[in-house]
Amino acid sequence: MESVKVFAPATVANVSCGFDVLGFCLDHVGDEIIVHKSPQPGVRITKIEGQKLPLATKENVAGVAAEALLEKYRTDVGFEIEIYKGIKAGSGIGSSAASSAGAVFGINALLGEPFSRDQLIEFAMKGEELASGAAHADNVSPALLGGFTLVRCGKTPDVISLPSPEDLYATIIHPKIELRTADARSVLKKTILLEKGIQQWGNLAALVSALYTNDYDLISRSLVDVVIEPERSVLIPHFNEMKKAALSAGALGSGISGSGPSIFTFSKGHATAEKVQQALIETFSPLGIEFDIFVSKINPKGVQIIS
Amino acid sequence: MESVKVFAPATVANVSCGFDVLGFCLDHVGDEIIVHKSPQPGVRITKIEGQKLPLATKENVAGVAAEALLEKYRTDVGFEIEIYKGIKAGSGIGSSAASSAGAVFGINALLGEPFSRDQLIEFAMKGEELASGAAHADNVSPALLGGFTLVRCGKTPDVISLPSPEDLYATIIHPKIELRTADARSVLKKTILLEKGIQQWGNLAALVSALYTNDYDLISRSLVDVVIEPERSVLIPHFNEMKKAALSAGALGSGISGSGPSIFTFSKGHATAEKVQQALIETFSPLGIEFDIFVSKINPKGVQIIS
Repeated sequence: MESVKVFAPATVANVSCGFDVLGFCLDHVGDEIIVHKSPQPGVRITKIEGQKLPLATKENVAGVAAEALLEKYRTDVGFEIEIYKGIKAGSGIGSSAASSAGAVFGINALLGEPFSRDQLIEFAMKGEELASGAAHADNVSPALLGGFTLVRCGKTPDVISLPSPEDLYATIIHPKIELRTADARSVLKKTILLEKGIQQWGNLAALVSALYTNDYDLISRSLVDVVIEPERSVLIPHFNEMKKAALSAGALGSGISGSGPSIFTFSKGHATAEKVQQALIETFSPLGIEFDIFVSKINPKGVQIIS
Repeated sequence: MESVKVFAPATVANVSCGFDVLGFCLDHVGDEIIVHKSPQPGVRITKIEGQKLPLATKENVAGVAAEALLEKYRTDVGFEIEIYKGIKAGSGIGSSAASSAGAVFGINALLGEPFSRDQLIEFAMKGEELASGAAHADNVSPALLGGFTLVRCGKTPDVISLPSPEDLYATIIHPKIELRTADARSVLKKTILLEKGIQQWGNLAALVSALYTNDYDLISRSLVDVVIEPERSVLIPHFNEMKKAALSAGALGSGISGSGPSIFTFSKGHATAEKVQQALIETFSPLGIEFDIFVSKINPKGVQIIS
């Protein structure tokens, strides 16, 4: 195999009460990454379409992730990477993670899979480090493993795959406003009330249980973030109206995707997820802010070779 | 049926990273409660053995719990309750919860089971309210339902039964020191670092996943309480030595039971749990503090009729 084309999906991190630990993988929306073997050692980004991003290997998340892999797996083979961005940077659905995950997955495939998907997380995290200053696994884990993933804290990530109920769908709306990650961070307080912490971990534990038991009602009751959402949602215009509209249309619950501005909602069944989409379109259209919106099944597979 | 004898098991609440939300049920150790129907309406406590506790219905947790049930289910039948305490008050393994759960379970049986085990929780919580001033479900839930239970916060408890891995055993040591609940509460700070909160909910989410997947290694990695244990363990003499001894003997992990002074440890398999018991005996014996110690399977059934 001399080249490979990979679909690298968008992902949602910071899933409500699972702030900083729970993420899930989306379908259809993502980047396409083509990796070619090259006789010239090293990694080169040869093409980027869909977004203005740096071609210099060390300034590009995919390049940095790829180099991290090749530091562990020495080879004379080189790699050229083409990136076709389907995810907008700054949208809050794992744009950098998709490119990083796609690049290392493609190279690993061309090398005959010396690493497992789990092992690739560490390399893709290097891309995240470039993008945000912190080598977090919140988005690269679901991008590589698919489904829901839980990242237990620690510098060496302890990533646990959780099951996804068959009928669980996400509706994602991306209001096209600029939300600086620095602002999203600065609104967070360093301390929280113990009482709120207890509510949060009770809700997250219940949510994890609900994923194992396909308990949609429990997903709905437990998808409550009492710690981060009250602080961050003020940065997203009309957040509460959107939430209300989604719930009225039958959504199980909603939350901020990543650090925003995208918002995810969960629904049981595709039809309800589309109703929620319609309700969000009706709520958002009159506001004069551009937006993207789509419905996605929880993608159980993660990054995949498409040709 | 004119009378019924019930075994009401001891329980562990505040399971490590599951502070205030996660509990589990113990085997063999517990109270025996005998409930007799009586032609005289109302509830009377006729006998208490094993502990000095008030006989006055309204001053006894079992009496208060029983009256809460009879407020919802009006009947001319009365009930006389005998309590044979197998659990010491103040030991931190759900003494009041056992009596409350046993009383309402026995009365419910004599009434032909108008309430489910889940519905009995609310009544048993009234006993907890008398005992500790807060109507919490942390101990009465595992006492009534067995296994592991998760209580999502809220005044109406949302109690979720979690699975117990088949080979999971607890070793419980009760150092016979007086630890006032007020002291155990007063050491807790009202606020915690967000960073610690994230670690805590990541660990609890992983622990819940591990219970579903019988992943003993993950139970071990995730049974870490970075919020409460560092504060409360100072009240329990030699806590860190005991913890170290248990881990060296092969325990998966340990934590404070309830608000202490009892300590629970988890082990995979009965043999390891007994080794842990031996190691704790050897560590504790020279210290000149009396203690009880026992090994228990996680009790999957909860309170049961024994005759």
